[in-house]
Amino acid sequence: MEISQLGEFGLIRRLTKDIECRQSSTLKGVGDDCAVIAPTDGEVTLVTTDLLMEGVHFDLIYTPLKHLGYKAVVVNLSDLYAMNATPRQLTVSLAIGKRFQVEDIDALYEGMRLACEKYGVDIVGGDTTASMTGLAISITAVGTARREDIVYRGGAKETDLICVSGNLGAAYMGLQLLEREKAVYLQQMKESGNNDMPFEPDFAGREYLLERQLKPEPRKDILEQLRQAGIRPTSMMDISDGLSSELLHICHEGQCGCRIYEERIPLDYQTAVAAEEFNMNVTTCALNGGEDYELLFTVPLSDREKAEALEDVKVIGYIAKKDQGKILVTRDGAEFDLKAQGWNPM
Amino acid sequence: MEISQLGEFGLIRRLTKDIECRQSSTLKGVGDDCAVIAPTDGEVTLVTTDLLMEGVHFDLIYTPLKHLGYKAVVVNLSDLYAMNATPRQLTVSLAIGKRFQVEDIDALYEGMRLACEKYGVDIVGGDTTASMTGLAISITAVGTARREDIVYRGGAKETDLICVSGNLGAAYMGLQLLEREKAVYLQQMKESGNNDMPFEPDFAGREYLLERQLKPEPRKDILEQLRQAGIRPTSMMDISDGLSSELLHICHEGQCGCRIYEERIPLDYQTAVAAEEFNMNVTTCALNGGEDYELLFTVPLSDREKAEALEDVKVIGYIAKKDQGKILVTRDGAEFDLKAQGWNPM
Repeated sequence: MEISQLGEFGLIRRLTKDIECRQSSTLKGVGDDCAVIAPTDGEVTLVTTDLLMEGVHFDLIYTPLKHLGYKAVVVNLSDLYAMNATPRQLTVSLAIGKRFQVEDIDALYEGMRLACEKYGVDIVGGDTTASMTGLAISITAVGTARREDIVYRGGAKETDLICVSGNLGAAYMGLQLLEREKAVYLQQMKESGNNDMPFEPDFAGREYLLERQLKPEPRKDILEQLRQAGIRPTSMMDISDGLSSELLHICHEGQCGCRIYEERIPLDYQTAVAAEEFNMNVTTCALNGGEDYELLFTVPLSDREKAEALEDVKVIGYIAKKDQGKILVTRDGAEFDLKAQGWNPM
Repeated sequence: MEISQLGEFGLIRRLTKDIECRQSSTLKGVGDDCAVIAPTDGEVTLVTTDLLMEGVHFDLIYTPLKHLGYKAVVVNLSDLYAMNATPRQLTVSLAIGKRFQVEDIDALYEGMRLACEKYGVDIVGGDTTASMTGLAISITAVGTARREDIVYRGGAKETDLICVSGNLGAAYMGLQLLEREKAVYLQQMKESGNNDMPFEPDFAGREYLLERQLKPEPRKDILEQLRQAGIRPTSMMDISDGLSSELLHICHEGQCGCRIYEERIPLDYQTAVAAEEFNMNVTTCALNGGEDYELLFTVPLSDREKAEALEDVKVIGYIAKKDQGKILVTRDGAEFDLKAQGWNPM
């Protein structure tokens, strides 16, 4: 169905009619000039926003719209969890190019609703408009936390341990796989002259890498573990631009240096295999790949045992004095300065 | 200067380095995964968002970037005022095409900062990214209000008076002027073969219409008047899509009808002159023009005298029973159903 058949208000009604608000703090959701949110007793409000542009952040040749919707929500929730906050509400703005059908936007919204249901978040407002070109998705997420529980980027202190959840570089390798198959597909389409050829590459055995790229999950579970273990991180952020870049932020904000060890950086086996196949250095992928949405955090040295007992968390190094630099120690003991992008051990 | 010389983080630092947060509720502004906002005693939080796309919402041939920045903030503040709330914070996300220079984004940001200063709002976060094509601006504004002071769209009751601030249709006529001069300019450029010709049309005597289109102001002053007069509107919204469309929202939400009078719709003299020149019906422009950012509100009949004493506010009709329809009474006494778009008295 063409979107013009529904019009802006018709499309909004269609997308929002089934939305149920579950948060008791949502006093007014979609349908007025603003959403209205009640304060949560003793808590402050946190706000984060992300703008995703077609051709820059996603490629619809290999990104199912439902996955895209899910991921668009997740990247915002990840920012809230990275401050130790609880996500509550979000707004969704879409700019939609002419080539999209109503069913496409249904699929996108279905993915967003799925993520919202899973993490208990209400869609409370937004904006829907035309776009002269591709699709743009702007999401703003609102959460709450007790003021004293918030973990900023800037609290890391000398001797603190640097911890990372999950593993790194998998989302980046998933992207490489998708880009390679896209190139093959475009070539085949060109040669065959068939423009309706479906994009159906065989990713058997690589599902994990694709899932990390196409359907990431925010690490709410790590916060629960930290709470149960009685650990309060001194600094925390989510890894969206790559470990190096985020670690440099933490050092910059905390006015400190760091030392991390290549051998301790958590990698999945599939990431290593794919890096080998692409003739890439797997550590470089893990340091600079981005889109992992894992948590990077520091804990006091006195919490070492507790931190090492956490599931799916690795201690990869420690915070040093500022003048000691921001160092990666390689497997063979060589030291390199961490760079925000394109660190190259060769 | 090319944006690539600064990089994403360099650009963000440049744009945000001079930002001062004035709201005591802003606990943490730009620079972490989220902004942190303290609750305002006894008040709830309101959130609104707008996504502006180049080629759909603005044309950079005739829109100075500073004005665009100002307007992008104003359209969001207008939504907060339309619920009788006080704007406090906002986030700014930009997607920037390759043809933009650092100085362009400086100008855009300068306009945004100007609007924020004027209305006492803090810029607390955002996102900056590349765009494959034009410019996209996504702003989310956060405000507060005492819960009992919030005015929703849905409270209009039979016999309530329908009021409008300022005058209508001027922003639309400003757009017509700009579009006409753009066509002339493009033609001249084509004929002369000079692609560097500056766009310098003569708008002498039309400044008011251009200002309404390019630099609208939200009607904070009307709320202050209402407060001083002791009037509590039963319903309110801002007029962004045109009087007809907004009035139909108010009737739909309030399950009521309405009667408005053509002769009472406030018009500026320049709007009427320009409509005549363009051979357009000025009432149609006022009903459907959009982008006025005036306030449309209803007040109890018992407040008639107070409402009529308000400065720059006109009572244009009243709320009727639902089955009496949504009617425009023309100057000659004919009755027409209000339509969301393209009402045509001919």
